[in-house]
Amino acid sequence: MSGDDRPRIVPIALIQTRCGGKKEDNVARAVDGIAEAARRGARVICLQELFATPYPCQSEDHERFHDAEPIPGPISERLADAARRLGVVVVGSLFERRAPGLYHNTAAVFDADGAMLGIYRKMHIPDDPLYYEKFYFTPGDLGFRAFATRFGTIGVCVCWDQWFPEAARLTALAGAEIVFYPTAIGWIHEEKEAYGASQWSAWETMMRSHAIANGIFVAAPNRVGVEGRLEFWGASFVSDPYGQIVARASHADEETLIVECDLGKLDVARTHWPFLRDRRIDAYAGLARRWGDVPRRGCG
Amino acid sequence: MSGDDRPRIVPIALIQTRCGGKKEDNVARAVDGIAEAARRGARVICLQELFATPYPCQSEDHERFHDAEPIPGPISERLADAARRLGVVVVGSLFERRAPGLYHNTAAVFDADGAMLGIYRKMHIPDDPLYYEKFYFTPGDLGFRAFATRFGTIGVCVCWDQWFPEAARLTALAGAEIVFYPTAIGWIHEEKEAYGASQWSAWETMMRSHAIANGIFVAAPNRVGVEGRLEFWGASFVSDPYGQIVARASHADEETLIVECDLGKLDVARTHWPFLRDRRIDAYAGLARRWGDVPRRGCG
Repeated sequence: MSGDDRPRIVPIALIQTRCGGKKEDNVARAVDGIAEAARRGARVICLQELFATPYPCQSEDHERFHDAEPIPGPISERLADAARRLGVVVVGSLFERRAPGLYHNTAAVFDADGAMLGIYRKMHIPDDPLYYEKFYFTPGDLGFRAFATRFGTIGVCVCWDQWFPEAARLTALAGAEIVFYPTAIGWIHEEKEAYGASQWSAWETMMRSHAIANGIFVAAPNRVGVEGRLEFWGASFVSDPYGQIVARASHADEETLIVECDLGKLDVARTHWPFLRDRRIDAYAGLARRWGDVPRRGCG
Repeated sequence: MSGDDRPRIVPIALIQTRCGGKKEDNVARAVDGIAEAARRGARVICLQELFATPYPCQSEDHERFHDAEPIPGPISERLADAARRLGVVVVGSLFERRAPGLYHNTAAVFDADGAMLGIYRKMHIPDDPLYYEKFYFTPGDLGFRAFATRFGTIGVCVCWDQWFPEAARLTALAGAEIVFYPTAIGWIHEEKEAYGASQWSAWETMMRSHAIANGIFVAAPNRVGVEGRLEFWGASFVSDPYGQIVARASHADEETLIVECDLGKLDVARTHWPFLRDRRIDAYAGLARRWGDVPRRGCG
């Protein structure tokens, strides 16, 4: 962060797409989307979670491990190449084959010269009906990170991480000015009518709260389209550091959001809502416990 | 928590009022409000922050320390008496005189037999124009707590705490099924038009996010009325564990919200949004640091 509050405008892009069955087609369309976003002025461009394939975790299917690739690998090199050619930062979400029998849900960050600044391995892994991710992905072992790109310091968390205030906080404390959340979340057909609005609202609310609590921009690209029993709900969005939605995509259409983020706002937000000033770091040890270690009674 | 998901209905009340200049009148009206809420069926009743006086922190005025009282003390005994007579749990927010020159912003919890189960001393103390709380209140030294009352295990955080996900998380991990946030927040006249809607939205959003992230009920009574340069914005509310607003009071009127909270929903919420299952307690040590201890570059 610059330490002053002069405007520092960074145009970012979130690419919200459907995914077809052919990996090569999905990757080609992602690269085209990056080029189109760059033409429209974007300087930091984030793809949705696991953009190269249909969401692989609706069942526990060993065949799906064939979708994975090492990092660096063929797809990451395509993204690095796009970043270098276009002079933009690219965030891509990949099914990483780290070693035989060791797979991660990993985001890679490429600087505007094409260099890979680093990777983030999804730390919180869900496992729920139709989202059987614990079968596929080993939880990340790199912690929460920020990447100093040519256009600003960014963090990446992935999908399920978005429900954990700890992830956003640690990423912000690492210096991230914008936290990207590549996402693949959708409605289960038979739940949508009863719970769909509430589920989507909770999802957006959590990430808006991360923006507020940390005084950061939050940007979440989500996929669209129906795959099997899931209807991915799109609604990719960018929140400013006050939790205000600056832009939001539709629930069903392919769309690229381009949003100018003024990183000069961070210092303003954080001095007007001075939460970082007042955190009780002497009293947070219990956050590293699972449950119930705080005394429940007593007249202090 | 009961460990099953059978309905366990607890009617709670939030009392949203104006405060006049006479402490005795404010206390009498609070006790009347508790009685009225109990008549209407409430079993856990929470008053707004520092209900006994006008908000004392709009200036740094040594005279205001005279408003404080020890706990136990005259006001806390009035609340204890009301709890015992009516058979209800009462949460009261008090300006605590702990020792000469040592003051806290403290909530006291009285069980339905009138016994004081304990106190919580506000951990996060704000200090902003017209909210000069650091002048008055020593930050709490009791940590985050839950109180096992006759009608459920509750937690209390106070106002500024509501912006810190850490506070809600630790209170939930201590076992709280409902977290109350006695509050005194309002608009500064000259900011209201430009920022008022955003400020109020951020405030409610943060607390809804605590409900979602922790699978708890959140209940925030806030004051109303104009005092000096502040217009307290009311809008007391209860959120269910999905972040849905179950009831919300107006911005300007005195009002008592009565809401039936089904504590049986907690286990349902937490198994359908299983965030407590997946917290990465091995990776949260950095939350007890102030800033920037996480590596910012590197290809992992």
